[in-house]
Amino acid sequence: MSKETKAEESHRQDSANLLIFIILLTLTILTIWLFKHRRFRFLHETGLAMIYGLFVGIILRFGVHLPQDLNDITLTCAMNSSPTTILVNVSGRFYEYSLKGEVRDSKGHDVPNAEMLRKVTFDPEVFFNILLPPIIFHAGYSLKRRHFFRNLGSILSYAFVGTVTSCFVTGLVMYGCVVFLKVIGQLGGDFFFTDCLFFGAIVSATDPVTVLAIFNELKVDVDLYALLFGESVLNDAVAIVLSSSIVAYQPEGDNRHTFDGSALLKSLGVFLGVFSGSFAMGAATGVMTALVTKFTKLRDFPLLETALFFLMSWSTFLLAEACGFTGVVAVLFCGITQAHYTYNNLSAESKSRSKQLFELLDFLAENFIFSYMGLTLFSFQHHVFNPLFVIGAFLAIFLGRAANIYPLSFLLNLGRKNKIASNFQHVMMFSGLRGAMTFALSIRDTATYARQMMFSTTLLIVFFTVWQIMSYSLYNRLHYLCCLVFSLLLKVTAPDGMTQKSTKHESAWPFRLWYTFDHNYLKPFLTHSGPPLTSTLPACCGPIARCLTSSQAYENAGQLHDEDTELILNDDSSLMYSDMTVSTDAHGMPTPSTSQAGLYSLARTSDDPLDRELVFGGTRLVLPTDDPSDPLTSFPPPPPSPPLSDPLRHRV
Amino acid sequence: MSKETKAEESHRQDSANLLIFIILLTLTILTIWLFKHRRFRFLHETGLAMIYGLFVGIILRFGVHLPQDLNDITLTCAMNSSPTTILVNVSGRFYEYSLKGEVRDSKGHDVPNAEMLRKVTFDPEVFFNILLPPIIFHAGYSLKRRHFFRNLGSILSYAFVGTVTSCFVTGLVMYGCVVFLKVIGQLGGDFFFTDCLFFGAIVSATDPVTVLAIFNELKVDVDLYALLFGESVLNDAVAIVLSSSIVAYQPEGDNRHTFDGSALLKSLGVFLGVFSGSFAMGAATGVMTALVTKFTKLRDFPLLETALFFLMSWSTFLLAEACGFTGVVAVLFCGITQAHYTYNNLSAESKSRSKQLFELLDFLAENFIFSYMGLTLFSFQHHVFNPLFVIGAFLAIFLGRAANIYPLSFLLNLGRKNKIASNFQHVMMFSGLRGAMTFALSIRDTATYARQMMFSTTLLIVFFTVWQIMSYSLYNRLHYLCCLVFSLLLKVTAPDGMTQKSTKHESAWPFRLWYTFDHNYLKPFLTHSGPPLTSTLPACCGPIARCLTSSQAYENAGQLHDEDTELILNDDSSLMYSDMTVSTDAHGMPTPSTSQAGLYSLARTSDDPLDRELVFGGTRLVLPTDDPSDPLTSFPPPPPSPPLSDPLRHRV
Repeated sequence: MSKETKAEESHRQDSANLLIFIILLTLTILTIWLFKHRRFRFLHETGLAMIYGLFVGIILRFGVHLPQDLNDITLTCAMNSSPTTILVNVSGRFYEYSLKGEVRDSKGHDVPNAEMLRKVTFDPEVFFNILLPPIIFHAGYSLKRRHFFRNLGSILSYAFVGTVTSCFVTGLVMYGCVVFLKVIGQLGGDFFFTDCLFFGAIVSATDPVTVLAIFNELKVDVDLYALLFGESVLNDAVAIVLSSSIVAYQPEGDNRHTFDGSALLKSLGVFLGVFSGSFAMGAATGVMTALVTKFTKLRDFPLLETALFFLMSWSTFLLAEACGFTGVVAVLFCGITQAHYTYNNLSAESKSRSKQLFELLDFLAENFIFSYMGLTLFSFQHHVFNPLFVIGAFLAIFLGRAANIYPLSFLLNLGRKNKIASNFQHVMMFSGLRGAMTFALSIRDTATYARQMMFSTTLLIVFFTVWQIMSYSLYNRLHYLCCLVFSLLLKVTAPDGMTQKSTKHESAWPFRLWYTFDHNYLKPFLTHSGPPLTSTLPACCGPIARCLTSSQAYENAGQLHDEDTELILNDDSSLMYSDMTVSTDAHGMPTPSTSQAGLYSLARTSDDPLDRELVFGGTRLVLPTDDPSDPLTSFPPPPPSPPLSDPLRHRV
Repeated sequence: MSKETKAEESHRQDSANLLIFIILLTLTILTIWLFKHRRFRFLHETGLAMIYGLFVGIILRFGVHLPQDLNDITLTCAMNSSPTTILVNVSGRFYEYSLKGEVRDSKGHDVPNAEMLRKVTFDPEVFFNILLPPIIFHAGYSLKRRHFFRNLGSILSYAFVGTVTSCFVTGLVMYGCVVFLKVIGQLGGDFFFTDCLFFGAIVSATDPVTVLAIFNELKVDVDLYALLFGESVLNDAVAIVLSSSIVAYQPEGDNRHTFDGSALLKSLGVFLGVFSGSFAMGAATGVMTALVTKFTKLRDFPLLETALFFLMSWSTFLLAEACGFTGVVAVLFCGITQAHYTYNNLSAESKSRSKQLFELLDFLAENFIFSYMGLTLFSFQHHVFNPLFVIGAFLAIFLGRAANIYPLSFLLNLGRKNKIASNFQHVMMFSGLRGAMTFALSIRDTATYARQMMFSTTLLIVFFTVWQIMSYSLYNRLHYLCCLVFSLLLKVTAPDGMTQKSTKHESAWPFRLWYTFDHNYLKPFLTHSGPPLTSTLPACCGPIARCLTSSQAYENAGQLHDEDTELILNDDSSLMYSDMTVSTDAHGMPTPSTSQAGLYSLARTSDDPLDRELVFGGTRLVLPTDDPSDPLTSFPPPPPSPPLSDPLRHRV
């Protein structure tokens, strides 16, 4: 086979592999539509994507047999391991070659379909550099910022203290498990304490996607929802930085069995440095975009504006990676900053453009990852499944999550006005599901035995998550149906005396301070909204204030209605899901046409509070959202109902 | 340096390289805005992107010196050339390694910054698989289909006969040039006749982008514009298939100096096969998408709909590549089909979503390619600049273009009612500029001496193109300004007696037939528009017709107003740019705010003819467009004026 023909063959193979994924996604989309259309919602879309991926993985692994072409030039050399790059001296010129993979094992057997399976299982860096950023950015961009900031203290506690606790508890349990495996001789390779901690870190990243999926079913108070969603978004960031600091200060050689104090401190230093560096970088790019969009009249050209917005957000990721910080974390904070400031400066067209663009990217990336996960179960060639290790892992993550939620909730409840009820703590406990981030972290390095075992186990954990959502959804639906029939038969109506928690919300003073500062100085500085700087800055700063305040800001000042501040200053309980009722069909879901119409209006709602009053399914309601791209607007939102402690009891 | 540290270092370098491009694009966007804002339009945006790229290329080449780390394991072997893959036997296991590049030349010198420059000059397949498809799809999707189909005969003649002629004329001239170079001993390597033909094929691809850029300045009759734009879009497809058929049947060994008859016939066969296969594949995916969007109620969920639309369009490309056809060509025809059928089935939200998405992708990809071109001039390490060859190439493309345009125009004018004026032929001659496609084709393979020389020469040709647009634009503007001042001083108004060509447009009978078929059967079958099939199909097909006709179609039937047919049946001259006048500012451009507002309305115009009446810059006009995403709507469109033979004389 000539060089050119071979390159062409390889290119065709690449296209075919990518085509597999595109077809998988297309199928998923059509099935999602079918399920939505038929009101058949046993499965979340990510579950569908995964199941399709699983089937294709089986077919590729067992159904296809491609002839292998090994007539390359073979060099023999005396090495113990395969280096990632080698230099080849061809008549005095030096060429660099990089490792592609193993094609024939030590017994001389060709690895079956090695080439094809290796190509389908493509470079894990793709997840980190292409697929994760849009998902994480979208999570940040669509965060319900008002509720997020109001619960910032609790969210940060769960995300930092909780995730670190969970990481160490899981790591310790796993270490016990590994030692046990070693004693009974079930361990086929090295597994150090740092590996256990690394495992603890990666499985501590809970998935906002699965949280969203569950909460479409289960209706809770928006504040508690924000708590859970905010925690699951932030703990991804914490877990990723935590895992990389564990890797960075992993002691080499014989010391690997222990994890000494100085290394721990060093890791802590790296953790704090990387986290704050990434945070600063994300926030800085966001602020820069806000300033550029404020001080140029880029809004006259929506295409340019959207392109700039997109590029600046992406550059955050690359900048952080190039500086040795964590791109994904930077992108998260960039998303939050963009939504809080830049979004206000965009033209109406760019607002909807950027929202739709990021929504689409998020949707595609997420479904791609889940189909890929399904596929990997069969196409990955170095799985190490150890049943005892898997059982140990499930036990460990259960204990780790418990050690995160219960003690912290107890401590937080001492200070919170809006207590976290014990029922809700159980919900948080079990909605700590693992998804895309855990998978991406575990596939990033599968070189050693320990990492391969971790990867296989993680894959099972993620599968379990999807199964859990599925069965939960099924159970919930069946249960609800039974209750409905029962209540119709007996004409029993639902008891009304639910434990309605205090609507007085937590507004801790540091956040009041921050809000005042943000509202009076940052927003007017970075955007056209907020009170003019001339009225908030002291008189001596007059010239600077005039220079930084746009004419638009003066116009806006009269009709100003800053929602963040308003919410902090008076606890406006009309801005809660709990005040809404929506007409639902017999299955407990809003009828699609109605909800769809409602969604569009919701998505397009302006800043004017009058516009936010909508007739939604026959009931007039005031929309609580100031979010640029509420993730709930993409699909029918959770039919709102009063906050409830036991979601199932309430339905009877 | 450990393996992990090295991988991390390499990852950082990758991020930094990509970051360079993102920053370049951001800078370009801001400069474009500044130019637009200040009404300073000497430079087209692609020119800007290129110039920025050029500067960065110079800095990377001469300003940065990275220490090189060559402590890899070095293997010595007795080979004459470097194979693309080698197998390494590591204690019985076989690992495959692939070539990355040369790091030290035969004199033992390290190639300076080899690693970095190689990484910046990334895999050319990226152009073909990632950057070109959105550009070409957008060109197809935004083609002014009505005018395109009306001139289909002429467009196809230029695209097929013209491009093949141009390819052979250019190839022959180049062969003469190469023989001359060999005689005087200026040729440093092999250069075969097939290489000359290949060069002829790649430089015959004229660029729709540059055509658009020029025609923003120069105002012509829409039909002639459609002719030129349609030709430049289609000849890309012809050139790419032509070049690959030349490569495929390139005789090996000693026969390479000649190009025998049977090989020519074989090439022709391959050409026709690949072209029709790609066409069929693109059209088939388009039709499939139309059917899926028609028969599912996917339009209730715009996110799913847009995602499906995007994925199906992309899958065309991959499917064609996987089958050995040409993805870019398939994507072009897919774009045209999607715009013609699928677009009608989309929900209003998806229409604008898909339009905006493809517009953004096109914008980003295009600017990326042009900055990359600028950068390559200095970062590419194997340039072969031969002044005589370059001069020969410029002469050859000039002659090739002339051999394409003039004889064909003469022949076509024999049959056309709306003659192609000789002035317009000159315009076509000089607007045959080379852009992204020529560049992508030439960078695809730079392995041999001949290909390297071609690549360097092509790069200069593209630079010349950009310079040509720039100087043209400058000249045009200065000229216009002088004329304006002159006319103001002398109070001379423009003479009115321009040679207004016949408004009776060519509607050749094969196209009337096609239109009738399309309007009566295809449109109603694939979309909800058009007359119900029950009224157009014979009575015996009643049940099938009823099954395939949606209730929406019956509703639409009453108020039906199919523009294509109407245009074919009565030559409605009110639907021409020539009937519009737009108020312009002193610089001859519509004022940004007005034009912007006009653009949005234009972009969102519905199928209802009443909606297409707009007040645009103070003048009521009937919009002539039924295009889903007219490329002109993204930026201020050419201020329409009567069709003119000499665009400059008219201004006086």
